[in-house]
Amino acid sequence: MQRLLAGEARAAGRVISLIEDRRPERFAVLGALAGRVGRAERLGVTGPPGAGKSTLINAMTRALRAAGRTVGVVAVDPTSPYTGGALLGDRVRMGESGLDAGVFIRSMATRGALGGLARAAEEACDVLDAYGRDVVVIETVGVGQSEVDVARAADCTLVVLSPESGDQVQAMKAGLMEAADVFVVNKADREGADRMVAQVEEMLHLRARRGAWEPPVLRSVALKGEGVEAILEAVARHRRSEEERGGLAARRRGRLLARLRAAVEEIHREAIWADPGSALALEGAADRVASGGADLYGAAAGLFRSWLRRAAGLGGPPRGE
Amino acid sequence: MQRLLAGEARAAGRVISLIEDRRPERFAVLGALAGRVGRAERLGVTGPPGAGKSTLINAMTRALRAAGRTVGVVAVDPTSPYTGGALLGDRVRMGESGLDAGVFIRSMATRGALGGLARAAEEACDVLDAYGRDVVVIETVGVGQSEVDVARAADCTLVVLSPESGDQVQAMKAGLMEAADVFVVNKADREGADRMVAQVEEMLHLRARRGAWEPPVLRSVALKGEGVEAILEAVARHRRSEEERGGLAARRRGRLLARLRAAVEEIHREAIWADPGSALALEGAADRVASGGADLYGAAAGLFRSWLRRAAGLGGPPRGE
Repeated sequence: MQRLLAGEARAAGRVISLIEDRRPERFAVLGALAGRVGRAERLGVTGPPGAGKSTLINAMTRALRAAGRTVGVVAVDPTSPYTGGALLGDRVRMGESGLDAGVFIRSMATRGALGGLARAAEEACDVLDAYGRDVVVIETVGVGQSEVDVARAADCTLVVLSPESGDQVQAMKAGLMEAADVFVVNKADREGADRMVAQVEEMLHLRARRGAWEPPVLRSVALKGEGVEAILEAVARHRRSEEERGGLAARRRGRLLARLRAAVEEIHREAIWADPGSALALEGAADRVASGGADLYGAAAGLFRSWLRRAAGLGGPPRGE
Repeated sequence: MQRLLAGEARAAGRVISLIEDRRPERFAVLGALAGRVGRAERLGVTGPPGAGKSTLINAMTRALRAAGRTVGVVAVDPTSPYTGGALLGDRVRMGESGLDAGVFIRSMATRGALGGLARAAEEACDVLDAYGRDVVVIETVGVGQSEVDVARAADCTLVVLSPESGDQVQAMKAGLMEAADVFVVNKADREGADRMVAQVEEMLHLRARRGAWEPPVLRSVALKGEGVEAILEAVARHRRSEEERGGLAARRRGRLLARLRAAVEEIHREAIWADPGSALALEGAADRVASGGADLYGAAAGLFRSWLRRAAGLGGPPRGE
C-alpha cells in the first residue's frame, strides 16, 4: 500500500488485478484506501462500438496532460484496443511502458457477471483516485443497459456517437439518453454527422428536462484532435453547474449508497454460498422443484431460513471483515 | 389460477403483469404453477438490433401453427415492434385480439435492473409453459451480455444476424458465439450475406468445440418466409442431439440451480432492505465512509452483521413464504 500511495504504476496494476479477480485480499486493500478516495474527477465515456471512444479518450488524455493533469483510464470494453485493435501499440506505450508516468491505462475483461465487473471497475477507479490521478476515465461500450450503467457511475458521462450509430442509438435510446451529460458526435467530418446531431437534439427536445443542466451536443474528429478542447470545456462547465446546485455532492452520495448496498449484498451472497450446508440444500431443493414437489420461491425461502438458522447459530460468517 | 390453467389469455396476461411488477403476489401464483412447468419447448432468440428477429419469430410462429403447435412469445426488447415498429399491427392482431388463440405474445419492458428483468422473463415463460403452450420463445436484443444471457435460458438458442451486423458481431463476439446453438443469417437476399456466413463460420472454426453439437449457420429471408422450415428442422435436430447425450436434462438442471440461487439471493436482498434498521444504518455507514472514517467493505460488513443479529432475533423475515 505504501508503494501504491507513492505512485508506482506496477503496484496499482497489481492491486487492480486483486480487485478484478474478486480475491478476498481486496477487502484489506480497499480498506487501506479509505479516506484517500474522492479527489479525482471521474469521467464516464460510453457509446456504441465503432464510435471512436478510445481515440477520443486518447485525444482528451493528450489535452489533459498538456494542461499538466494526470490521467487514469479504466476500459471495460470487449472491443477495446487493448484486446487487439489499431490503437494497441499506442495505448500500451502510453499506459504501461512508463513513457509518460502521468497516464495509466487499464483494460478490464468481461469475465462472469456484469454486476461483479461493474463493482470491480468502480473499485479500480478508486485505486487510481487514491493513487493520485487528477482525472479518472471509465470507458464502456454502450451496447446494453448494464454496460451503460457502468459509465454512469461518474461525475460526468459522455455519450460518444458517430454518423453511423443510428441503429444502435435506436436500440439503446432511453438508456443512452438518460446517461448523457454531454453528447459527442465523433467522426464529424463524415457524411451523416449533421443528421446524427439533429437526431440527438430532437430526442433531447422530446424528453422531459431532468434538471438545470441541458446536455450539449458537440462534434469532434478525435483522430485529428478536433473538438477535444470544446468537450473538455463542456465537462468543466457541467462540473461547475453541478457544484453550484449541489448536484455533484448528491450524485456522489447516491453512488456511495448504491455501492454500499451492492457491497452488503455481495457479502450476503458470499456468506450464503460459502456455507457448505447451502450447497447441499440447493441440490435437494432442485430435486423437489424438478419433481413438482415444491415451487421455486417456496424452495428458495426454505433455503434462506435454514441458512439464517445456521448463520445465527454460528454468530455470522467472517467474510468482508 | 383455475382460469390460467384453463387457458385464458387474459388471465395469463394478468399473471405476467404481477411478475413484471415484482409484486409479492407473484410468489403465490408461481407456487401454484409448481409441477405444471417443464412441458414446453423453450427457444431463445437473440441478435443485434435490425437483424429481423421479430419478423423471423413471426414466420416461425406461422410455421409452427401450421403444424398444429401453440406458441407463446416473451419479447424483452426495447426495439420490439410492440413499442412502435412496422409489425405492430400484425403482432397485436396475432397476439392479443384473439384472432388466433394459439398464439400469445407478450412484450416486457426494461424497467430497473436487468437482473430482475431476466428473472421476470423466465417466470413469464413458466406461466406460458403452464398455460399449455407447446413452444415458448424468448426474444432479446443481443446488445449486451446480460441481454444475451436472457435468451440463453432456453433449450435452444438462435442467434439471428443480418448482412449488416458486422460491427455488432465484433463487439459481442464472445457472448454471442457462446450463446448460439443455431446461427441464422437473415435478410440473406441482401449483399454481404455470403461474407457474414463466412465470418461466422470462421469464428466457429477458431473456437474450441464445446460438445457434440456443431452450431449450423443457416440463411433466411424471414419477410418472405424463406429458410424458416430449415431453421425449425435444425432446432428439432438440436433437441434430439441434446436428448441423446443427456444435454437437455443437464441444461435444464443447470438453469434450475441458477434460478434457485437467484431466488434465494432475491429473498435475501428483500429481507435486508425491508428491515427498517438496515435503511437507517445505511445512511450512517455512508456518512462514515464519506468522511474517511470507514471503508466501503468494512462498513458493509458491519451492516450485514447488525442485520443478521436482528433477523436471527426476530426469527427471520417472512418474505417469499
